[in-house]
Amino acid sequence: MLKLYRPIFYVCGVLALVMAGLMLIPTLYAWLTDDPELKPFLLSTELTALGGLLLVLLFRSSNFALSSRQLYLLTSCSWLLLSFAGSVPLMLIHHPLPLADAVFEAVSGITTTGSTVLSGLSSLPESILLWRSLLQWVGGLGVIGMAVSILPFLRVGGMRLFQTESSDWSEKSLPRFHALARSLLATYLLITLLCASSYWLAGMTLFDAINHAMTTVSTGGYATDDSSMGRFSADILWIATLFMLLGGMPFTLFIRFLLQRSAKSLSDDQVKGFIAIVFCLVALLSAYLIQVKEIAPFEAVTHAAFNIASVITTTGYASTDYTLWGQFSIALFFIVTFIGGCSGSTSGGMKIFRFQLSFLFLRDQFRQLVHPRGVFSIRYNGKVVQEDIISSAVAFSFMFFVVLAITTLMLAALGVDFVTSFTGAATALTNVGPGLGEIIGPAGNFAPLPGAAKWILSFVMILGRLELLTVIVLFSSVFWRG
Amino acid sequence: MLKLYRPIFYVCGVLALVMAGLMLIPTLYAWLTDDPELKPFLLSTELTALGGLLLVLLFRSSNFALSSRQLYLLTSCSWLLLSFAGSVPLMLIHHPLPLADAVFEAVSGITTTGSTVLSGLSSLPESILLWRSLLQWVGGLGVIGMAVSILPFLRVGGMRLFQTESSDWSEKSLPRFHALARSLLATYLLITLLCASSYWLAGMTLFDAINHAMTTVSTGGYATDDSSMGRFSADILWIATLFMLLGGMPFTLFIRFLLQRSAKSLSDDQVKGFIAIVFCLVALLSAYLIQVKEIAPFEAVTHAAFNIASVITTTGYASTDYTLWGQFSIALFFIVTFIGGCSGSTSGGMKIFRFQLSFLFLRDQFRQLVHPRGVFSIRYNGKVVQEDIISSAVAFSFMFFVVLAITTLMLAALGVDFVTSFTGAATALTNVGPGLGEIIGPAGNFAPLPGAAKWILSFVMILGRLELLTVIVLFSSVFWRG
Repeated sequence: MLKLYRPIFYVCGVLALVMAGLMLIPTLYAWLTDDPELKPFLLSTELTALGGLLLVLLFRSSNFALSSRQLYLLTSCSWLLLSFAGSVPLMLIHHPLPLADAVFEAVSGITTTGSTVLSGLSSLPESILLWRSLLQWVGGLGVIGMAVSILPFLRVGGMRLFQTESSDWSEKSLPRFHALARSLLATYLLITLLCASSYWLAGMTLFDAINHAMTTVSTGGYATDDSSMGRFSADILWIATLFMLLGGMPFTLFIRFLLQRSAKSLSDDQVKGFIAIVFCLVALLSAYLIQVKEIAPFEAVTHAAFNIASVITTTGYASTDYTLWGQFSIALFFIVTFIGGCSGSTSGGMKIFRFQLSFLFLRDQFRQLVHPRGVFSIRYNGKVVQEDIISSAVAFSFMFFVVLAITTLMLAALGVDFVTSFTGAATALTNVGPGLGEIIGPAGNFAPLPGAAKWILSFVMILGRLELLTVIVLFSSVFWRG
Repeated sequence: MLKLYRPIFYVCGVLALVMAGLMLIPTLYAWLTDDPELKPFLLSTELTALGGLLLVLLFRSSNFALSSRQLYLLTSCSWLLLSFAGSVPLMLIHHPLPLADAVFEAVSGITTTGSTVLSGLSSLPESILLWRSLLQWVGGLGVIGMAVSILPFLRVGGMRLFQTESSDWSEKSLPRFHALARSLLATYLLITLLCASSYWLAGMTLFDAINHAMTTVSTGGYATDDSSMGRFSADILWIATLFMLLGGMPFTLFIRFLLQRSAKSLSDDQVKGFIAIVFCLVALLSAYLIQVKEIAPFEAVTHAAFNIASVITTTGYASTDYTLWGQFSIALFFIVTFIGGCSGSTSGGMKIFRFQLSFLFLRDQFRQLVHPRGVFSIRYNGKVVQEDIISSAVAFSFMFFVVLAITTLMLAALGVDFVTSFTGAATALTNVGPGLGEIIGPAGNFAPLPGAAKWILSFVMILGRLELLTVIVLFSSVFWRG
C-alpha cells in the first residue's frame, strides 16, 4: 500500500518546495517595498518549505516508473497540494481570509479560473496581488506540462489524440522529457516577458504590466483592480486580446516553431478551428453592437474582440459589463463560456478539438447514410483517428453536462438563485471566471456566496482543470478494486 | 428526381386523408353539441381531404422499397404535413389564430410538447379543446410507430440499438409490420381507455376524462383549463402520474406483455433505469418539500411524484407552480427537463438509454485504465453493444447541446430575455412544454413571444421529436450529393 503512495507523497513534497520557492518572490517584493505583509509571506514560505521537506525526506524515492493508477492519483493530489499551499499566505495576512475563501481564491488562481472573493483590489497590499498573479502563472505552466506529459497517457476525454513520440512515458525517455520541460519553461517565460513589455510600453505601470502579463498568458484573469481591464486604453486591450489568444493555443506549437523556425510548423487543425471560431464570434458580436446598440465601429470591434477572446480562452477579464449589452450578448457570452481554447494550452472549457471531432464524426455518420456499405475514416491533423478516441472525446461532453447539472443542483440546494447556481457551476467547470447575474456577473464577485458553495466550486474548478475524468475515476470502485 | 419524391408525396397525401378523418371527430362533436365551431371544422375537413386526395391521385405509387434517403425525407415531410394540417382548423375558427400561433399550437400538439399560445382554455368551444387533445393523441401514436419502424434503420443517435427482427424494412416483412401496427394501435387505444375511465371514476367529467386521457398517454400535456391539472383531486393526480409513467415506457414491451402474458417480458434495462431515476428524483424532491418547505408528507409526495413524472416523461402538466418551491426546485425541474423517458415511448428528451450507454461506456473506460490490455464489451439488455452505436448515441447529446445553444442565441437576438430564451429552447427541444420564468413558466404561456420566436420554436419541437439528426442530415451537403 505504501509502495503505491510513496512516490506520490514524494512528488507532493517536491511541489511544496517549489511553492515555497515561489513564495519567496512576494516575500522579497514585500521586503523591498516596505509592504505590511512581509511577515505573513515569510511565515508562509517557512511553513510550506518545512512541510515539503518533511514529505521529501520521509518518502524519498527514486522509482519513477509509475503505473497509470499512480499517475491518476498523482495528478489529483498534486493539484490539491498546490491549491492548499497557495492558500496559506491568504490565511496569514493581516486581514486573513476564512478557510473557504482562502482555498477558493487559491484554487481559482492555480486552476487559472480567475473568479475572486476579494474586492477593493487596488487598495490591497501589492504583495498579495503579486501572489495571486504568480498562482495563475504557475498554474498555467502546470496545466501545459500536464497536457503534454501526463494526459495523453490517460484514457481521458480523447486526450490520447495528442499522444506523440515526445510523450512516451518510460525511463528511457526521461532525457527527452527534461528537454521538453526546459523548452516549455523557456517559451512560457519568453511569451510572458513579451506580453509584460508590450503592456508596459502601452502605458501600464511596471507592476501592473508584470501582473497582468502573468494572468494573461496563463489565461487566468486575475486583475489588480475591481474594474478588471476596464480602466485601460484600447491599445492595451488589443495587446491583451493578442496574448490571451496565444495563451489559448497549444504551446508545443510555439516550441516547434522556435526550434524549426518555419511557419509551416504552426499549421494545426485545432488552431485553425480556434481562429475561425473566434473570428466568427467577434464578427457576430461586433455587428450586433454596431447595428443594434449603435456603438462606434472601432470601439465595438475592440470590446467585442477583447471580451470574446477573454471568455473563449477562459481568461475572464472584462473591459466592461458585457451583460448590459442586452439579451443577445448575455446568451452569446454564456454559450462561449463552454467552448474553451485548444488542448495543450492554458485555457479550460470543453476545448476546440472535441467540437471538431464531434463534427467530423457526424459528417462521417451522414456519409455512411448515403453509402451504407462504405468504410470511411476520420482524419485529424492528417492522421486517422481511432473510433475509441472519438467516443472518449464525446463521452467527455456528456460527463461535463452531468457534472454541471449536479453542481447546479447542489448550489441551488444551498439557496443560491438559479441563474447564479447554473452559471457559477458553468464558469467554475470551464475555468472561465465570471458568471451571469448580479452576484457573480462580470461586475460582481464570489464573496457573497455561502461557504459550502465556495467549497463545491473549488472542487469543480479542479475537476474542470483536470479534464473531469482524471479526478472522477478516483471515485469509481473499479479504480480501487484493480 | 420525381422518382425520389413520388412515394413521399403519396404518403403525405395518405396522411392528409388521415388528418381529415381525424377532423371528423371534432366536427361530429360540434354538430352534436351545437358548438359554434361546426362550420370551421367542416371546412377544415373538406380542405384537408381535398389536398390529401389530390396528392394521392397525382403521385399514386405502389413502390414501397424506399431507400434510406427517402426514409429521411419521408419522416421530416410527414411531420411537417401533420403539423400544417393540424393548424388548419385553428386558422378557420371564429377567433382565428395568426399563422405563427396556429402552426406553433399544432406543432406543439402533434409533437406532444404541450406548450400553448392559448389562454382562457375553459371558455373556448369544446371542439377546439378536443382537436388539441386529438393532435397530441395521434402525435403520440405516430412517434411510437416511427421509433419502432423507421428510426432503428437510420443511423440516428444510437437508435440502431433497437433494431430487432421485427423491424426489418423489406417487402417480405410487410405482413409482420401490419400485425405490429395493429397491436400497437390496439394497445395504445386500450391504455387510453383505461386512463379515461380511471379519470372518470375518480371524478372528472366525461369530456375532461377523455381529453386528459389522450394528452396523458401521449405525454402531451394539453389541458382543458389554464390551471392545467391544478384543480383536480389527489386521486386524479396519482392516476395521471401512473399513466404518464406508462406513457414514458416502451410500448413494444406492453405489446409483448399482452401477447406473452408473462411478467418476465416486462424486464428491460431501460425501464429499470427509468423507474430507478424517477424514484430517486421523487424521493429527493419530497424530502426537500417536507423538510425545507414544511409541506405535509402526503401532499408533498403527491405533488413531487406528479410534477416529476410530468416533466421527466415530457408531458408538461403542472399541479401547481413548482417554480414557487424555491431555487432547488427550479434547478431540479430544469435538469429533469433534459432527461426524458424511454425510447419507443411517446416521451421526448434525451432518453434514458443514452444516459445508460454513456455510463456503461465510462465504466468501460475506467476498467481499461486498470487493465490496459483487457478487452471488454458493453452489454445492454443482455446483448453486446457495438462501439459505433455508442458513439452515435453520445454524439446525439453533443448535437443536442449545439442545437440548444444556437436556438437560445436566436431567441435572445429577437430580444427575448435570457432565461426565457434558454429554457424555451430546452423545453421545445425536449418536447416538455413549460419553461422557466414569468412568461413561459408553468403558470404562463407562449403567446407573448414574438412571431419569429414561435416559428423557431416550432421548428425546434419537430427537430426534438425526430431525434435531431433525422432532420439535420437533410441540411448536409453529403445528403444531397449522394
